[in-house]
Amino acid sequence: MKKLFAMYAQPADEAAFLRHYNEVHTPLVEKIPGLARLVVNRVQAAPLGGEPPYFLIAEMHFADNASFTQAMRSPENRAAGDDLADFAQGLVTLLVVEDG
Amino acid sequence: MKKLFAMYAQPADEAAFLRHYNEVHTPLVEKIPGLARLVVNRVQAAPLGGEPPYFLIAEMHFADNASFTQAMRSPENRAAGDDLADFAQGLVTLLVVEDG
Repeated sequence: MKKLFAMYAQPADEAAFLRHYNEVHTPLVEKIPGLARLVVNRVQAAPLGGEPPYFLIAEMHFADNASFTQAMRSPENRAAGDDLADFAQGLVTLLVVEDG
Repeated sequence: MKKLFAMYAQPADEAAFLRHYNEVHTPLVEKIPGLARLVVNRVQAAPLGGEPPYFLIAEMHFADNASFTQAMRSPENRAAGDDLADFAQGLVTLLVVEDG
Protein backbone atom coordinates (compact mmCIF):
# COMPACT_ATOMS: atom_id res chain seq x y z
CA MET A 1 0.00 0.00 0.00
CA LYS A 2 1.36 3.41 -1.03
CA LYS A 3 0.48 6.31 1.26
CA LEU A 4 0.94 10.02 1.65
CA PHE A 5 1.34 11.08 5.28
CA ALA A 6 0.56 14.71 6.17
CA MET A 7 1.94 15.50 9.62
CA TYR A 8 0.74 18.81 11.07
CA ALA A 9 2.51 20.71 13.84
CA GLN A 10 0.33 22.37 16.48
CA PRO A 11 -1.35 25.46 14.97
CA ALA A 12 -1.65 28.69 16.97
CA ASP A 13 -5.44 28.66 16.59
CA GLU A 14 -6.37 24.98 16.77
CA ALA A 15 -10.12 25.53 16.52
CA ALA A 16 -9.84 27.66 13.36
CA PHE A 17 -7.36 25.21 11.87
CA LEU A 18 -9.64 22.22 12.49
CA ARG A 19 -12.64 24.08 11.12
CA HIS A 20 -10.81 24.70 7.85
CA TYR A 21 -9.32 21.19 7.88
CA ASN A 22 -12.70 19.50 8.34
CA GLU A 23 -14.93 21.79 6.29
CA VAL A 24 -12.67 22.79 3.40
CA HIS A 25 -9.54 20.64 3.17
CA THR A 26 -10.96 17.17 3.84
CA PRO A 27 -13.70 17.50 1.18
CA LEU A 28 -10.98 18.48 -1.34
CA VAL A 29 -8.81 15.48 -0.37
CA GLU A 30 -11.78 13.12 -0.65
CA LYS A 31 -12.19 14.17 -4.29
CA ILE A 32 -8.67 12.96 -5.26
CA PRO A 33 -9.17 10.15 -7.80
CA GLY A 34 -7.87 6.76 -6.67
CA LEU A 35 -7.83 7.63 -2.98
CA ALA A 36 -8.58 4.28 -1.32
CA ARG A 37 -8.85 5.58 2.24
CA LEU A 38 -8.26 8.67 4.35
CA VAL A 39 -7.26 8.08 8.00
CA VAL A 40 -7.03 11.08 10.32
CA ASN A 41 -5.10 10.48 13.55
CA ARG A 42 -5.25 12.94 16.44
CA VAL A 43 -2.04 12.91 18.48
CA GLN A 44 -2.71 12.46 22.19
CA ALA A 45 0.68 12.03 23.87
CA ALA A 46 4.42 11.60 23.40
CA PRO A 47 5.21 8.82 25.88
CA LEU A 48 8.99 9.39 25.82
CA GLY A 49 8.43 12.96 27.03
CA GLY A 50 8.51 16.45 25.55
CA GLU A 51 5.90 18.12 23.40
CA PRO A 52 4.59 15.98 20.54
CA PRO A 53 6.07 17.32 17.26
CA TYR A 54 2.65 16.96 15.56
CA PHE A 55 -0.95 17.32 16.66
CA LEU A 56 -2.56 15.62 13.67
CA ILE A 57 -1.31 12.96 11.23
CA ALA A 58 -3.44 12.26 8.16
CA GLU A 59 -2.84 9.23 5.93
CA MET A 60 -3.97 9.03 2.32
CA HIS A 61 -3.90 5.43 1.12
CA PHE A 62 -3.55 4.30 -2.50
CA ALA A 63 -3.70 0.76 -3.82
CA ASP A 64 -0.39 0.89 -5.69
CA ASN A 65 2.29 3.09 -7.27
CA ALA A 66 0.30 3.65 -10.46
CA SER A 67 -2.82 4.93 -8.71
CA PHE A 68 -0.66 7.08 -6.41
CA THR A 69 1.18 8.68 -9.35
CA GLN A 70 -2.06 9.26 -11.23
CA ALA A 71 -3.64 10.80 -8.12
CA MET A 72 -0.70 13.16 -7.58
CA ARG A 73 -1.02 14.44 -11.18
CA SER A 74 -4.76 15.08 -10.94
CA PRO A 75 -6.34 18.56 -10.87
CA GLU A 76 -8.15 17.47 -7.69
CA ASN A 77 -4.78 16.87 -5.99
CA ARG A 78 -3.56 20.24 -7.21
CA ALA A 79 -6.62 21.89 -5.64
CA ALA A 80 -6.00 20.09 -2.33
CA GLY A 81 -2.29 21.04 -2.49
CA ASP A 82 -3.10 24.70 -3.18
CA ASP A 83 -5.41 24.72 -0.19
CA LEU A 84 -2.74 23.03 1.95
CA ALA A 85 -0.14 25.65 0.99
CA ASP A 86 -2.66 28.28 2.03
CA PHE A 87 -3.88 27.10 5.44
CA ALA A 88 -0.99 24.89 6.65
CA GLN A 89 2.09 26.80 5.48
CA GLY A 90 5.02 26.06 7.76
CA LEU A 91 2.97 23.51 9.74
CA VAL A 92 2.84 20.49 7.46
CA THR A 93 5.41 17.79 6.64
CA LEU A 94 4.49 15.47 3.77
CA LEU A 95 5.98 11.98 3.48
CA VAL A 96 5.49 9.36 0.78
CA VAL A 97 5.62 5.93 2.44
CA GLU A 98 5.04 2.32 1.52
CA ASP A 99 4.17 -0.58 3.79
CA GLY A 100 4.44 -4.31 3.37
CA MET B 1 -8.65 2.69 16.89
CA LYS B 2 -5.87 3.55 19.36
CA LYS B 3 -2.33 3.39 17.98
CA LEU B 4 1.26 3.85 18.99
CA PHE B 5 3.40 5.38 16.24
CA ALA B 6 7.16 4.82 16.40
CA MET B 7 8.90 7.23 14.03
CA TYR B 8 12.59 6.47 13.43
CA ALA B 9 15.13 9.00 12.15
CA GLN B 10 17.72 7.77 9.66
CA PRO B 11 20.28 5.59 11.48
CA ALA B 12 24.00 5.87 10.65
CA ASP B 13 24.15 2.17 9.76
CA GLU B 14 20.81 1.46 8.11
CA ALA B 15 21.56 -2.19 7.31
CA ALA B 16 22.55 -3.02 10.91
CA PHE B 17 19.55 -1.09 12.22
CA LEU B 18 17.11 -2.96 9.96
CA ARG B 19 18.67 -6.30 10.83
CA HIS B 20 18.07 -5.65 14.53
CA TYR B 21 14.64 -4.14 13.83
CA ASN B 22 13.47 -7.13 11.79
CA GLU B 23 15.16 -9.97 13.64
CA VAL B 24 14.98 -8.82 17.27
CA HIS B 25 12.63 -5.87 17.77
CA THR B 26 9.68 -6.89 15.58
CA PRO B 27 9.35 -10.36 17.18
CA LEU B 28 9.27 -8.65 20.61
CA VAL B 29 6.59 -6.19 19.45
CA GLU B 30 4.49 -9.00 17.99
CA LYS B 31 4.34 -10.63 21.44
CA ILE B 32 2.62 -7.60 23.03
CA PRO B 33 -0.80 -8.82 24.20
CA GLY B 34 -3.75 -7.11 22.53
CA LEU B 35 -1.75 -5.89 19.52
CA ALA B 36 -4.32 -5.95 16.72
CA ARG B 37 -1.95 -5.06 13.88
CA LEU B 38 1.60 -3.91 13.20
CA VAL B 39 2.12 -1.76 10.10
CA VAL B 40 5.68 -0.87 9.08
CA ASN B 41 5.98 2.03 6.63
CA ARG B 42 9.24 2.77 4.83
CA VAL B 43 9.61 6.46 4.03
CA GLN B 44 10.43 7.07 0.35
CA ALA B 45 10.28 10.82 -0.18
CA ALA B 46 9.42 14.22 1.28
CA PRO B 47 7.53 15.87 -1.59
CA LEU B 48 7.74 19.40 -0.15
CA GLY B 49 11.55 19.16 -0.21
CA GLY B 50 14.36 18.64 2.26
CA GLU B 51 15.46 15.42 3.89
CA PRO B 52 12.62 13.30 5.32
CA PRO B 53 12.72 13.59 9.15
CA TYR B 54 12.12 9.82 9.45
CA PHE B 55 13.10 6.78 7.44
CA LEU B 56 10.67 4.31 9.02
CA ILE B 57 7.28 4.77 10.72
CA ALA B 58 5.79 1.78 12.54
CA GLU B 59 2.18 1.69 13.72
CA MET B 60 0.95 -0.55 16.49
CA HIS B 61 -2.86 -0.76 16.41
CA PHE B 62 -5.09 -1.60 19.37
CA ALA B 63 -8.84 -2.07 19.33
CA ASP B 64 -9.59 0.43 22.10
CA ASN B 65 -8.23 2.39 25.09
CA ALA B 66 -8.56 -0.56 27.46
CA SER B 67 -6.53 -2.97 25.34
CA PHE B 68 -3.94 -0.24 24.69
CA THR B 69 -3.52 0.48 28.41
CA GLN B 70 -3.30 -3.20 29.25
CA ALA B 71 -0.73 -3.72 26.48
CA MET B 72 1.43 -0.83 27.70
CA ARG B 73 1.51 -2.36 31.21
CA SER B 74 2.50 -5.84 30.03
CA PRO B 75 5.93 -7.40 30.60
CA GLU B 76 6.08 -8.04 26.84
CA ASN B 77 5.77 -4.29 26.21
CA ARG B 78 8.47 -3.64 28.79
CA ALA B 79 10.77 -6.06 26.94
CA ALA B 80 10.07 -4.32 23.62
CA GLY B 81 10.62 -0.91 25.26
CA ASP B 82 13.94 -2.01 26.81
CA ASP B 83 15.09 -3.20 23.41
CA LEU B 84 13.94 0.07 21.81
CA ALA B 85 15.92 2.13 24.34
CA ASP B 86 18.93 0.02 23.48
CA PHE B 87 18.99 0.05 19.67
CA ALA B 88 17.06 3.20 18.81
CA GLN B 89 18.22 5.67 21.46
CA GLY B 90 18.03 9.21 20.11
CA LEU B 91 16.42 8.00 16.87
CA VAL B 92 12.85 7.23 17.85
CA THR B 93 9.84 9.46 18.52
CA LEU B 94 6.80 7.72 20.03
CA LEU B 95 3.30 9.13 19.62
CA VAL B 96 0.00 7.88 20.99
CA VAL B 97 -2.72 8.66 18.45
CA GLU B 98 -6.39 7.91 17.90
CA ASP B 99 -8.33 7.91 14.65
CA GLY B 100 -12.02 8.07 13.89
